[in-house]
Amino acid sequence: MVTDIENHEVVEKARRAKEAARQLARLNSKERQTLLHAMADALLAAESETLAANEKDVARVKASGTASAFIDRLMLTPKRIADMAAGLRQVAALPDTLGEVVRAWRLANGLDMAQVRVPLGVVAVIYEGRPNVTADVIGLCIKTGNAAVLRGSSDAIESNKVIAGVMAEAAEKAGMPSGAIQLIHDTDRSSARQLMRLNGLIDCLIPRGGKGLIQAAVQNATVPVIETGIGVCHVYVDADADLDKALPIVINAKVQRPSVCNAMETLLVHKDVADKFLPAAGSALAEHGVKLIGCPRTCSVLPAAQPATEDDWYAEYLDLILSIRVVDSAAEAIEHIGKYGSHHSDAIITENYSIARRFTSEVDSAAVYVNASTRFTDGFEFGFGAEIGISTQKLHARGPMGLTELTTTKYIVQGDGQVRG
Amino acid sequence: MVTDIENHEVVEKARRAKEAARQLARLNSKERQTLLHAMADALLAAESETLAANEKDVARVKASGTASAFIDRLMLTPKRIADMAAGLRQVAALPDTLGEVVRAWRLANGLDMAQVRVPLGVVAVIYEGRPNVTADVIGLCIKTGNAAVLRGSSDAIESNKVIAGVMAEAAEKAGMPSGAIQLIHDTDRSSARQLMRLNGLIDCLIPRGGKGLIQAAVQNATVPVIETGIGVCHVYVDADADLDKALPIVINAKVQRPSVCNAMETLLVHKDVADKFLPAAGSALAEHGVKLIGCPRTCSVLPAAQPATEDDWYAEYLDLILSIRVVDSAAEAIEHIGKYGSHHSDAIITENYSIARRFTSEVDSAAVYVNASTRFTDGFEFGFGAEIGISTQKLHARGPMGLTELTTTKYIVQGDGQVRG
Repeated sequence: MVTDIENHEVVEKARRAKEAARQLARLNSKERQTLLHAMADALLAAESETLAANEKDVARVKASGTASAFIDRLMLTPKRIADMAAGLRQVAALPDTLGEVVRAWRLANGLDMAQVRVPLGVVAVIYEGRPNVTADVIGLCIKTGNAAVLRGSSDAIESNKVIAGVMAEAAEKAGMPSGAIQLIHDTDRSSARQLMRLNGLIDCLIPRGGKGLIQAAVQNATVPVIETGIGVCHVYVDADADLDKALPIVINAKVQRPSVCNAMETLLVHKDVADKFLPAAGSALAEHGVKLIGCPRTCSVLPAAQPATEDDWYAEYLDLILSIRVVDSAAEAIEHIGKYGSHHSDAIITENYSIARRFTSEVDSAAVYVNASTRFTDGFEFGFGAEIGISTQKLHARGPMGLTELTTTKYIVQGDGQVRG
Repeated sequence: MVTDIENHEVVEKARRAKEAARQLARLNSKERQTLLHAMADALLAAESETLAANEKDVARVKASGTASAFIDRLMLTPKRIADMAAGLRQVAALPDTLGEVVRAWRLANGLDMAQVRVPLGVVAVIYEGRPNVTADVIGLCIKTGNAAVLRGSSDAIESNKVIAGVMAEAAEKAGMPSGAIQLIHDTDRSSARQLMRLNGLIDCLIPRGGKGLIQAAVQNATVPVIETGIGVCHVYVDADADLDKALPIVINAKVQRPSVCNAMETLLVHKDVADKFLPAAGSALAEHGVKLIGCPRTCSVLPAAQPATEDDWYAEYLDLILSIRVVDSAAEAIEHIGKYGSHHSDAIITENYSIARRFTSEVDSAAVYVNASTRFTDGFEFGFGAEIGISTQKLHARGPMGLTELTTTKYIVQGDGQVRG
């Protein structure tokens, strides 16, 4: 199946993962739990080794003059290593999804049909930045019976090598089929491209990172991809909004963690409440250091706001920047969200029953909120106990992806000699 | 989002479909049923127009010297048109999947969560051959609230134009948003390629046809694709098989309709029963005109069999040809299926409980059978009441795809002012 081999490391590791995946699928839930605890123990035992590798990454990245916020995310501490281990134990404790009978029925001819949840096989993840993602992804894949092929970024390569190496070794000692955890050491762009084209070896590719990475995967992958994470999220403050609810939601959606995909990027305000709401929101946002960008009507109410360009409405700032537009109606807000949004998470603030119902029905996003912050779109907040990413496509998974989204199903059909007439 | 525009017809029609999809999603179940009946009525009323167009297609294809089996599939008759109309009414009568609450729960902070079934948006189907697929696909898409963009083959273009035109006109008169049904008139390969790359306009692409078409979609599409239909299906006759069940199943799986993806291509026989089973099976298959190809052990038992090459084990003959291999164990059969199969449909014939359980657990195929023919892998046989294709990938859908597989979900989150802490 693999036709254009450019990178032997990637192809060889994917082959080994595929081979291991078949054996991994045979482990029962308790055996997989044992692997997760063994990996958690090993991470704690390898603390000094991990910190030493991480120091090399941090030193190299510092020397290249990278921003300190990035270095903070890259840096490991004993606390962060303990958190990784604790995360693995939490995943181990989650209810198992494999073997679940999604539906079962009997046909008129006596065939017994069952749709049963099984692993995907080999899950590949291409990711940027933080080394704790390495432990997270391995834990989620092993929990769901999938072999994992990881391609992290060059910034964290030394840390990733130690983390993946320690985890794989411990898991294999505890009974994991050899080869089920594969870290690609080559962090050149070509290794990611190769991974995207291994049909027959990779059952699912999840890119986790910025827009560039995700678009590269969508444009270049021939293996099935789950598009994740781009969030141009909106909060619409309706004419019938309770402004005492609207203000804390708007602040929370913008400033609680502006760098993530479920943070609000555009505020839409109904014209009837703009004069009252915008000055209060504008000063509260300014207090939090938010730079405001607005349509002409917004700028006339908030002189501090900069005029918005067409590009601003499409922008995912991931920063303390907010574009604001005054709209004439809920319908106009819905239109705006449909045109400029990324179908990730959008909220309406209203006390009006019919308008709330219309908004939830007509806004075509993975998560649609009434009177709550968009920041809740998250596997942990949703109660899934885990998250491998947030899908912004419509096939397979939409919104936060937990354990179930790392599985597929098969039909098991039991008969006693049936043939088709 | 659309960057490389090569074919204006395709881009423009996809844009119109996307626009219509938003309005289509607002229709309720009864309104969509009305559209399906209006389209069925119109197909019947346009019988002579449709037959006239079909005559042109048939004459053109006949003149090009195409095989008569293909022409038979292309040809419409009053009966076939009536069947298309009846098919639409059957789909209309199926239970609606939209609006289904897949799960709903309340978070500790009081947020009410619901995962609700909604349309995909715009479904594109690239298909070959038979014009009745046009009516089928339109019916399934409209039933599930999706706009449809159809790209049929040049062979059926005149028939497809009339069928899609008549159906779109009737549906629009009955309340369907204008533009929700789009047939691409350009049947050049470049129009298919363009359709494969309309990210932001096409939510799901389903190729229906031969291996060439499906591989072209997998290799070239940047929109989410569902890989369908390649079937290298196996029947494994175990040492503990009831040979009285095995023989009719083997005959049925091979000869009942050899040209379809769920027909058996390779028969695996345990060595302990080969001497007894193969002569009986071989002569029964020969009576049905099946050409036999075999491994050395098969050829020694069945002198009429031709020696198999390595390529034969990968082959999807779609014809009265069968490759046969004698294996030493169920494990070897499972290995063979994993290596050479297409993960579509595979069967074991056995009375042995543990071997049956091992086979269903370890064979990683969309449908795994015990003591039944692989020919049952079909949306109608499974009881779904419809089928848009059979997925051989693991994301989104696996096996026969009915109405549910033409939908996605979204989360609706209702609160009263919740913000994230």
